[in-house]
Formats: sequence, C-alpha cells, structure tokens
Amino acid sequence: MCLNVNPGRPGGAYGYVDMGGWIGGQAEYVMVPYADFNLLKFPDKAQAMEKIQDLTCLTDILPTGYHGCINAGVTTGSTVLISGAGPVGLAAAASAKLLGAAVVIVSDFNKDRLAHAASFGCETIDLSRGGTIGEQIEQILKVPEVDCTVDCVGFEAKQKGGEEQPATVLNQLMAVTRAAGRIGIPGLYVTADPGAKDKAAREGSLSLQFGLGWAKSHAFFTGQTPVLRYNRGLMMAILHDRIKIAKAVNTTVITLDAAPQGYADFDKGVARKFVIDPHGSLKKTA
Amino acid sequence: MCLNVNPGRPGGAYGYVDMGGWIGGQAEYVMVPYADFNLLKFPDKAQAMEKIQDLTCLTDILPTGYHGCINAGVTTGSTVLISGAGPVGLAAAASAKLLGAAVVIVSDFNKDRLAHAASFGCETIDLSRGGTIGEQIEQILKVPEVDCTVDCVGFEAKQKGGEEQPATVLNQLMAVTRAAGRIGIPGLYVTADPGAKDKAAREGSLSLQFGLGWAKSHAFFTGQTPVLRYNRGLMMAILHDRIKIAKAVNTTVITLDAAPQGYADFDKGVARKFVIDPHGSLKKTA
Amino acid sequence: MCLNVNPGRPGGAYGYVDMGGWIGGQAEYVMVPYADFNLLKFPDKAQAMEKIQDLTCLTDILPTGYHGCINAGVTTGSTVLISGAGPVGLAAAASAKLLGAAVVIVSDFNKDRLAHAASFGCETIDLSRGGTIGEQIEQILKVPEVDCTVDCVGFEAKQKGGEEQPATVLNQLMAVTRAAGRIGIPGLYVTADPGAKDKAAREGSLSLQFGLGWAKSHAFFTGQTPVLRYNRGLMMAILHDRIKIAKAVNTTVITLDAAPQGYADFDKGVARKFVIDPHGSLKKTA
Amino acid sequence: MCLNVNPGRPGGAYGYVDMGGWIGGQAEYVMVPYADFNLLKFPDKAQAMEKIQDLTCLTDILPTGYHGCINAGVTTGSTVLISGAGPVGLAAAASAKLLGAAVVIVSDFNKDRLAHAASFGCETIDLSRGGTIGEQIEQILKVPEVDCTVDCVGFEAKQKGGEEQPATVLNQLMAVTRAAGRIGIPGLYVTADPGAKDKAAREGSLSLQFGLGWAKSHAFFTGQTPVLRYNRGLMMAILHDRIKIAKAVNTTVITLDAAPQGYADFDKGVARKFVIDPHGSLKKTA
Repeated sequence: MCLNVNPGRPGGAYGYVDMGGWIGGQAEYVMVPYADFNLLKFPDKAQAMEKIQDLTCLTDILPTGYHGCINAGVTTGSTVLISGAGPVGLAAAASAKLLGAAVVIVSDFNKDRLAHAASFGCETIDLSRGGTIGEQIEQILKVPEVDCTVDCVGFEAKQKGGEEQPATVLNQLMAVTRAAGRIGIPGLYVTADPGAKDKAAREGSLSLQFGLGWAKSHAFFTGQTPVLRYNRGLMMAILHDRIKIAKAVNTTVITLDAAPQGYADFDKGVARKFVIDPHGSLKKTA
Repeated sequence: MCLNVNPGRPGGAYGYVDMGGWIGGQAEYVMVPYADFNLLKFPDKAQAMEKIQDLTCLTDILPTGYHGCINAGVTTGSTVLISGAGPVGLAAAASAKLLGAAVVIVSDFNKDRLAHAASFGCETIDLSRGGTIGEQIEQILKVPEVDCTVDCVGFEAKQKGGEEQPATVLNQLMAVTRAAGRIGIPGLYVTADPGAKDKAAREGSLSLQFGLGWAKSHAFFTGQTPVLRYNRGLMMAILHDRIKIAKAVNTTVITLDAAPQGYADFDKGVARKFVIDPHGSLKKTA
Repeated sequence: MCLNVNPGRPGGAYGYVDMGGWIGGQAEYVMVPYADFNLLKFPDKAQAMEKIQDLTCLTDILPTGYHGCINAGVTTGSTVLISGAGPVGLAAAASAKLLGAAVVIVSDFNKDRLAHAASFGCETIDLSRGGTIGEQIEQILKVPEVDCTVDCVGFEAKQKGGEEQPATVLNQLMAVTRAAGRIGIPGLYVTADPGAKDKAAREGSLSLQFGLGWAKSHAFFTGQTPVLRYNRGLMMAILHDRIKIAKAVNTTVITLDAAPQGYADFDKGVARKFVIDPHGSLKKTA
Repeated sequence: MCLNVNPGRPGGAYGYVDMGGWIGGQAEYVMVPYADFNLLKFPDKAQAMEKIQDLTCLTDILPTGYHGCINAGVTTGSTVLISGAGPVGLAAAASAKLLGAAVVIVSDFNKDRLAHAASFGCETIDLSRGGTIGEQIEQILKVPEVDCTVDCVGFEAKQKGGEEQPATVLNQLMAVTRAAGRIGIPGLYVTADPGAKDKAAREGSLSLQFGLGWAKSHAFFTGQTPVLRYNRGLMMAILHDRIKIAKAVNTTVITLDAAPQGYADFDKGVARKFVIDPHGSLKKTA
C-alpha cells in the first residue's frame, strides 16, 4: 500500500475526497505520480490499439475485480459467488473464469446486469426473488455453500425492501462461504457516511454477525487494489485473448462532453462501463 | 477445518456446546477421534517427560497463540500488539518472540498478567491508564502503530469502565494496525450470546468500524486453530529449548479433584494455566 | 510426500521398481492403500460417467502435468515452455491454459505430437528444425525467453542427433527461462540407469550447467506429484467443462487384452494415452 | 531480480566481473544506483551507531544467509544443516536461529570456523573426520537427515582430500535433506570457471546426482539475494537485539589501508568478516 502518494493517509486515488488531492482521472490529460515506477509499457503500440478498450480496464476495474478473486482464494475448480453485478462484480466474474473457477455465480437485484453476467457464462441469482441466497446456490450447485465469495457491493448494500443496510452483503456472504473459506472485499466500506440514516452508519459502524464468520474460520480481505502486482499478467492475458474484459464490463466509448450523461446513466444502474476518449483517438482505431 | 468430527458443523472441541458432543478433555481418560491421524508421537519418552508441562501446551494453548501470530503475519523484525494477557495472549506473545518479532507488546487491564508478560521480555500496556492504545504504543515504539495485531480476547471484551462491548478490541486493533497489516483473531466470537445485555450482542452482532479497517487494507483471520499444521514444529522448538511455553503461560499442575478450584481461580483472572494430572504421573517426574 | 506407503523410501507407485511393491494399476482390480484417506468421491455417478475418460486422468496424468505448471509458477498471463509433447507434456500444456497462461509453447521432435498440441491452441517448436530453442521462442514471442518452463521429458532426453543425453532438457530450459523464473520438473530423473552408455549416466549423474541457472536465480522443483493436493479442484474443473483433458492427452479406450499392443504403440511415440477398461463399462456409457 | 542495473544481464554487484561495472564497494565513497528506491533509512542515527557493525551486515552478508534459510524453508522447529562456516554460512546459521530452528548444524573442514559456530549455539560437523555427513547428523539428531539444508560453499567445494569438486556439496545435501525438503543455495555457482582443471568445470558444468534429489522431491533455490525484501525486518531484529550478527560473523573493523591484508587473511580461511571504516567513524563510536 503506497505510503508516499498521499500525505493524509496510506493509498491514493484520482478524484476522491481524502485520497491525496489528485484531481480526477476523467480529464484530457492526467498527471502520473512516480511515473518511472507506476507505468506499464505495452509491448507493441499497434497491437495494443487493437484491444485498447480492454487495456483501458487495466487502470482500475480489472485489477480490482481480479484482486477480489485472488483474496477470496479463487483457483482451479472453485465455486464462487460474486455479490453485485456492477462493473467491479462483472470484472470479478470474468477474473474468476480466468483463474479457472468451475462455477461463477453472480447475484444482484438488477435483471439487466444479471443478463449481462449470464451472457459470458455466469450463473445468476436474482435477489428480488424469494428464498435465501443459500437456497438459490443449492439449486445451482446441489450444496448451499460456495468455496469463495467476493463482495463487490460495499457499504451501499441494500436489503430486499430496497432499504440501505451496510452489513447486508457481508452477513450474507458469511452464511454461504464454506468452512475455512475466504471473503474478498473490493467493495468500498467508508470510515464515515454523513448522509446515512442511523447514527451507527454515519460513524461507519456495521452490525456484523462476526461470530458466524468466526465459527466457520473465515478470513476477510479489504482495501484498495495493488494494481502493480497484477497489471503485467493481466495485460498479457488481454493481449493473448485469455479474457474479454471490455465485453464483460460492457464498455462504451464516449467523449469527454458526454461524461456527465454517462454518470447519470451509471447512477440509474445501467449495465455499462464508460471509456472516455477525450481526443477521439479510439474512434479512429475502432 | 475438520468436516468429519462434528455432524452439526465444521470443527470440534472437547467440552463445548455444539462442538460435536466430545465430553470434556478434563477427565481421567480421553477418547481421541481419528487417532491414527490426529496423534503426535514424541521422539523419546524420557526426554518428553522432562518437558511434559511444556509439551502439554501443544494440545491447545500454544498452537492457538502461534496460529494467531502466523495469521497476523508476525515474522522477523515485526512489531506486534497482543490484546489480552490471559493464557492465549501469553502463548501468542511467546510465539511472536519465537517467530523473531522485534517488539512484542501485550495489553490488558490485569496488572498481575501484565507483570507476567513483562517477566519474559514483553512490553506492556495497562489499559486502565489514561490515553489511547495508539498513544501508549507511541511511547514504546516512537510510532503509534504496529505491524501485526492479535486479538486474544474475543467477544467478552470490556471497555474502560468495565462494561462488556464485544467490538471493543477489534475496533482498537484496526486503529493501531499499520496499513496493509493483518489482524489474527484467535479470541472467540460467538454466533449468539443469550446472556448479553443488548439485542445485537444476543444475536452475535458486533458494531464494527469496518470502514476503518477497509481504508487501511486490513485482513482479518478468524477461527479454530488447525493444530496439526503446527504441532510437530512447536514440539521440536520445545524439545530443543527454543520456547519456554510452560513458563510463559505460567502452568501449575493440579489434581483432578482440584479442577473446580482451578476454574474458580481462573475466572477471577489469575495469571495461571492449570495442567490437570489425574494420576499424579507428573509429580513423579517433576 | 507419503512416508507410510513404501517401507523402502518415501513415495509409492503402482507397477514401479522400488516404489513399495504395489503391483501395477493395469489390472482388473486394484488395491488402494489408506483408502479412507486416498479416495476422491465424485458428487454424482451419472454425471461422472459422462466424463469418465477425463476423470480417469485424475489418477495420475492430469495432476502430474498440473503440478509441473504450479511448480513452474504458471499463472495469469504467463508465457510457458513445455518440454516434451508426450502425455505428461500435453497434460501440462492443458493445465497451463487452465491456469490462465497467455502463451503455451510445446517442444518435441515428434511432428504428430506437436500437431496434437497445436490442435488445442498451443504454439509449437519442432526440435528437429535448425536454430536454438531461444531463437524459436523469439519468433513466437518477440523475446527469446519465457516466464515459466516445465520439463516433461526427464532423463531419457535426446540431443538433436537422437543421442541420449540426460541433461539436455534441463540445460536448454535454464537457457530460456527468464531471470528469477522457475523450472517445474515432473519428468523423471533416476538414481541409477544401468543401461546407459557412460559411467556418469549409469550412476544417475547429470552434467548440468548449474551456474547458468544460478546466474539467473532459477528455482528447480522435482519429484512425484502430491495428487491429493489437486484432485478435487481438477475434478470440479473437468465436471464443469473448464478443461478437456481426455482430448488434450488424446485418450483411447482399450480392453485389458489390448494393453500389450498399447504399450508397443506408446513406445513408438504415438500421440495417444490409453485408458484400459477391463469390464467394458465405458463402452456402454460412451 | 533487478533488470535495470546491469545492461549485460539481470542482477548487479559491486566489484564483480560482468555485474554491471559498478566499481567495488570497498572505497571511501560508493555510488548507489536508484538510491531513492534502494536505500534503507535507520529510525534513529544515535541508536544505529551503537550497533553499526551489526547494521553494516545488512548490506550483504546477513540478507544472503537469511535468504538461504528462507529458501530452504527454515521455520519454527526445523532441523537445519548449513554447509560451510565462512561468513555466509555463519550468517545463515544465525538466521536459522532467528527463524526458530530447533537445531542448527554447521559443517566445515576448518576447526576455527566450527569453533566459532559452536560459540553461538550451533552443532558442528568436522568434515575432516571419518564417516558420512549423514552418520554425523545421526549422532546429533538420532536420524540421518535434516528438514532443511543451505549450501554456503558453492562451486569451490572441496572433497575430503582437498581436491576441488564443484558438485560435492550439492550431492551431499541431496543425500541428507529429508523427503520433500528444500535446498537453499546462496553459495555461488559460475557460468564458467576458466582456471578449473577439467573441461566440464571450465564450462560451468556440474556432475550432479539429480536423480537422488528427484526421488526425494527436493526443490533447489539459487541466485543473488533480493536484499530489499528482507532488510527492514532484519534491521528491526538487530535494533531490538534479536540477532547478534556481528558476533556471529565475527566482524573486525579495519582501515581502508588494511584491506589488502584483510583479503589475504580471508583467503587463508580466517573465521572473520572485515568491516572497512575509511574515515575512522566507527572507532569514535565503538
């Protein structure tokens, strides 16, 4: 975890409060701190431009989903539950496939997102249907548990009625992760949520059924993704057609001017990841 | 985690509710399930009898403290905070030394226990004194954080006033574990605590500041100890004088009849671990 | 490594000299030592019978190839060289794909075997052509080295002229494995080879350019495969169509009576793995 | 392994042929490549000066011995054989203790060096005595094998008669490393040894009994030490008195002018590591 890029605390990010004051990555040009150390060089520019929508995903979304799976212990033959079918969840699902998982199950309330997950070979759980998640897993796998779970939702988790309850996903995942299983948590949990309804949530406290996880010897892995640990390998997987990440997260190229509309669509839950192309360079290649 | 020894759920233990119905280990004779697989053979009986109080600790307390340290990532040169100076905490402290930790700090409210931890080279934090734990760590290390933390308290955690607040220790540990650090949790958290004061605690829910841990990329490791993974190595360390675990957990040999008194003393917080010797065999050797 | 199954030395095998006296696995019935511990249960018999040729490969060939790749550090995006396109090499190649390798290159003298490797997406190097292996790798990858190498040949390695030179493959692999890379060695090296031409080979000594490996910080992993570590995950990968191992190693079902002919064909280098079906049970299902 | 510091090949070193042209570290001043990345900062100068002979060992000899032990799998309760009682061997022996080894055995022909190893708690094997190394191990451990072995000799290995035979140590270690054990090899093996007697040695070829290692599932780890991976932890261990490395490698402070005499003494096999103090700064503090 980088201790240098943010004087306030470990780790940094573009365009986030408290993350080092790096003005957002959605701009014509971006300043790269420690660029001699941070950048990944593509072996061949022409080859890279052919897959540039996929390679763009190396900046954040693909390593984040992949890190969630690595932390969850996804490997050859694993059964995996990915909670949330937003871009992180879809990237995690594609990563789980790449890691050799036997069955990848994605859960969400949003039918469009689930349909998209199904389009590249995932099983799906529609959370708006009746029954527990364990029961729905059992219909797919014959057993009510999976080897590995990944929380791609975070503190904005909602209960069935639509009410926000930030501990919902973690509590569900403890219920369905097998004994000695691991829970990868790329989904963001915040130190404070000023707009939350109740005092506990405002202070960033979750009401976690930690004893359930303890009884099953679970391990929990949180935090920002160490992108450098993964990006060369993932680049190679993209360049050699081992993962179709742009298709998995459903990228669409837009101009910089269309970014506000993109944010508005994203907030409505559209199953799409926007790639902003300030100078129209992708249009020429695509 | 053993899936065979307990039909009710994974894992088993002697003398616990819901842990497979194995009647307690404090008896004249004990039945060993899967004994062809579970038992550890000492290389030489005479040599073993010379260190039998230490070797007795291999059944549970030493691997438990050691597992907490391994999970916390304790290694050469680590700074470590052990929360709780009961037998598990003292075993964890001795294990951290064995693993090469640079500084081992033990925190507790009980002055006798802290004095015992200090007797084998630990730094101590008296929780009844003023100031945060981070401030007390800073007095010892010049920085307010440690590399690794181990929760040897569990759900019976108490706040400064003496009131039970099961999330207290975990919340404190997130505050003082460095970025990307790990928290080992041998301390027990239960799925339900019928005698607790408030509804959340009765249902086994903790009010955890999980966002704080997430912001620091912490990982959390829970559950029963896989004793077989560690017991040969720890036996060798005992036989060759690399750890004085009986001294660290302050063992006292008692008869079976004295066991009720031992439990009563233990509940009062005496800094002592009782070894029950039903047949007086240790007396002859010691 | 099993210390119990063979009084002579660690490890055992069916039908090998010095491997515990377990009479060969090519028989109507087979005795399974420590069967309560050793056997893998399929979740569903009917489902298993549909993929029985693939599942048969779990007994040996698939875990062996997979172990070679794990030892070589094959992971997401790796470039891999598999030396030898016999059944172990083909199983290693299929395993490397399953592990997410970007490019899998298989080298051999036998054109049929290479064609078979190419049939499931491998690049190939024909050792009978001119040029070093590094030059042929460079034609494929633009660089003369790979991340990971797996020796699936062993001591029966041959030089270009056809002469046996047991160190040939290992010396070649050190030349083309990148700095800090790992070499997995499922290929067998023997403690003595009484039929070899020169004294060194008869005594099991190899003339290794070990300094070359040392200068590149290579690590070397040898030995029998710990099948139990891998077989559940690989079974799940087979049952859920993540690997087509029967196709990769080109299985053919034969009767017990046809086994001698199968051995004769195999010795001629036919690119085929024989599954012996003593009771004709596969014919009924296939 | 650093790919940038040496245009000729991976890895670099001060004062070696082919290692990047970095003129030797035995000088009044030294140029540090990539100093923003490579340097380790001591927490407090005054505290550091008190242990400066120990901390000097962080530049090379301590991480090298420690890396050998890590590669060999040394951990809590291990039995370890260190081949060679020169500075690397003594540093490896001290590291093995720090890592919690139960028994550390050091072998050499040089009685002074063995006596020094014994002075900090090692068992010793005098190679000039009769019997195999396995027999001498058995006298110490009751079994003729150890868990872990570390080759701190390299290609200049000598046989009992004093004749150089570069494969001697590796062949001995395979004989006494337990099944599934690991061999750490910080001892240098060269790609060519122009002054060697026979053609094989001149070309850097070793006559290795590789089949013996294969039959025991050994793994072999070679190469330069990645110092950055270890130096912060080892620094903390030194500052907090967990290892007395200056005592273990028997440091002596000399002036720059005395360096030629130091080399001459070292070549005679004196059990001593020289710390060159060009400006007399250590004298003032020591």
